[in-house]
Amino acid sequence: MTDWQVIKGGITAPKGYRAAGITAGLKPSKAPDLALILSETEAIAAGVFTTSQVRAACVDYCRQRLQAKASARAILCNAGQANAATGEQGWQDALESAQLLGKELNISPDSIFLASTGVIGQRIKMDALREGIPKLVAAASVDGGEDAAKAIITTDLVTKSIALETTIEDRPVRIGGIAKGSGMIHPNMATLLAFITCDGAVATHLWQEMLKRAVDRSFNQITVDGDTSTNDTVIALANGQSRTTAITEMGKPAQKLEEMLTAVCQHLAKAIARDGEGATCLIEVRVSGAPDNQSACQVARTIASSSLVKSAIFGRDPNWGRIAAAAGRAGVQFHQDELNIQLGGFSLMENGQPLQFDREAASNYLKRAAEGAYLQEDTVLISVCLGNGSGTGTAWGCDLTYKYVEINAEYTT
Amino acid sequence: MTDWQVIKGGITAPKGYRAAGITAGLKPSKAPDLALILSETEAIAAGVFTTSQVRAACVDYCRQRLQAKASARAILCNAGQANAATGEQGWQDALESAQLLGKELNISPDSIFLASTGVIGQRIKMDALREGIPKLVAAASVDGGEDAAKAIITTDLVTKSIALETTIEDRPVRIGGIAKGSGMIHPNMATLLAFITCDGAVATHLWQEMLKRAVDRSFNQITVDGDTSTNDTVIALANGQSRTTAITEMGKPAQKLEEMLTAVCQHLAKAIARDGEGATCLIEVRVSGAPDNQSACQVARTIASSSLVKSAIFGRDPNWGRIAAAAGRAGVQFHQDELNIQLGGFSLMENGQPLQFDREAASNYLKRAAEGAYLQEDTVLISVCLGNGSGTGTAWGCDLTYKYVEINAEYTT
Repeated sequence: MTDWQVIKGGITAPKGYRAAGITAGLKPSKAPDLALILSETEAIAAGVFTTSQVRAACVDYCRQRLQAKASARAILCNAGQANAATGEQGWQDALESAQLLGKELNISPDSIFLASTGVIGQRIKMDALREGIPKLVAAASVDGGEDAAKAIITTDLVTKSIALETTIEDRPVRIGGIAKGSGMIHPNMATLLAFITCDGAVATHLWQEMLKRAVDRSFNQITVDGDTSTNDTVIALANGQSRTTAITEMGKPAQKLEEMLTAVCQHLAKAIARDGEGATCLIEVRVSGAPDNQSACQVARTIASSSLVKSAIFGRDPNWGRIAAAAGRAGVQFHQDELNIQLGGFSLMENGQPLQFDREAASNYLKRAAEGAYLQEDTVLISVCLGNGSGTGTAWGCDLTYKYVEINAEYTT
Repeated sequence: MTDWQVIKGGITAPKGYRAAGITAGLKPSKAPDLALILSETEAIAAGVFTTSQVRAACVDYCRQRLQAKASARAILCNAGQANAATGEQGWQDALESAQLLGKELNISPDSIFLASTGVIGQRIKMDALREGIPKLVAAASVDGGEDAAKAIITTDLVTKSIALETTIEDRPVRIGGIAKGSGMIHPNMATLLAFITCDGAVATHLWQEMLKRAVDRSFNQITVDGDTSTNDTVIALANGQSRTTAITEMGKPAQKLEEMLTAVCQHLAKAIARDGEGATCLIEVRVSGAPDNQSACQVARTIASSSLVKSAIFGRDPNWGRIAAAAGRAGVQFHQDELNIQLGGFSLMENGQPLQFDREAASNYLKRAAEGAYLQEDTVLISVCLGNGSGTGTAWGCDLTYKYVEINAEYTT
């Protein structure tokens, strides 16, 4: 079905990109904390950002850049300080960061996008940044994708990276991506960053539309604890180095590109949910039979984010009642006597009424899924059908564990 | 400021009411499980119910009754089985319950409201109910308020009961209330029930409007884990036994009555939040400076239901960043540079930027609040000002603890 394959190289797999990740001394831990993604040529740029009223300086900065000129040469990301709730000085720091990198790369600061993650209320350590930028630029290479993936994470347990390749006009077209995840732990690590590179050739407005739709079907459908951060940022570059004809309207090549972009985003989104704080498994909720896709997505998100469902999964408890209750309160109209619920291969509810099922076997399914026993995947699958509508939607989450409470309660100031 | 006083007697404090609570054998635990509230004369009735698409038979039954005739003599409540997701047979059981009680009381079944709480997917044990109803009716007395309060709870740790008295036309007017709480634990105990009695005289439409507003300012502003149940029900009776002139329009007497009704609802709502699963303290979030009251309530609810805020409070961590982030994503527009946050008496953020404060003292405040050291109250107060608007709103929640996860994960099937 899929028209693409997984390739190596992550964010530097597409043609014409270099990347780097170094330790600049921004994190107290001495872990890598400064990342660069660089396109050899000016790339068109698209972005999706947090909708929070409390935003980091870099978010406002990127929004401005995107409105002024939807193209870029580089993305600079620091980890350690979120530069959110830092007022005018935080804004000045953002401007200076872009100027410093522009000077070092000998490009206009207008071609640079910025992202930050780390402690809210803390400015970027500018001295360390000033010293770090020349080293960062010197380190940039076509093999630097994994280094960049490492330098953007904070409390994530693993790096998140992927690259896919398809063929358009008999030429290879590639999309790579890296992301950092769900850890919004004390002291306020900011949540979701994703950077995407593509060597395809595509018109700016199409690229932005594709990204928006891909984000809606991936990052906007994951939930770890329902909280949205001050710094959430997804930026996607496309530099046309594949030398394919520029895609300027929807059609088969555009569809191919968008499907691959969506697959990259979904891979990263699932990796983030799976790496949720304290999580033992990924929960995938598939909703069908809804009046429309949007309603289906809403019901899927509500189920995936229910604390009661999440803790039942952690307890390996095939609790259809909590799933039904979450579906019922999602704000989407349906007839309760048409509701069907499946957990993995087990039918738990049909036409709104509970079925007899083998509880032990179903509990075992949850246990084995958490152990990654199924196809090397640690995924618990919940399927819900609301009725006869054609709307479908998927959401991803993780279970709620003691570890989540520990991480978020015990790392006190 | 307040124009009423607390009196004894709970739901039977208002004139002309009797109540009972007995063990009918519906709960496996042999705890009281069948409650009756009875008005000597036909009382006007108002109700507010779950908006979930997955509803218990009793909810649909009460809605029908309220539309057909907004008055009643009795409320029958069973605990143990939720009678939700039980299809046509559940509906027939509800009808039979009303008929049985009507016969025993020698009143029309049309004058009876029903409520259920317990396991979703289980029908009421009708044999036990049939045997229990004559005993229940025989037990009804003017001192039965506390018995009824006990018979409606499931996993609640304490009963919730209150009675207030005010003076209208120099005559005493009383409102009493009982509630059951937040436990939507395995196996799917249904959530919120509240029953209110009043001996005031008031027009039906006014009483319904008052109840709707009071519920919006109380039960709709509490959150334990964001989940809404299949059985949520608030029913309020007013039988006019105070012999005051019937209140038929808004004005001073109406306002007095509504304030007292709101106070009863808020007392019960706070008692429910305080008794949230695994909670160590009540969290009160007061939002001011919003564009309107509705926006303020929304921001307050979002903060009170944030898992990150809740676990920080459990960790005794004065984490302003999580409060700011929750306010920011609540869907209400404000300027981040006008945001002020206080925790108890500590100013944590002013004009969108963090302040220096004594972290240890603030952490100590959280600790002492959880221990109930302040005025015998275990309340953590979070005050948030969004700007210059006149909108205010309050929400209540509780902290997120290991115990919550334990209760909801480990009581497996």
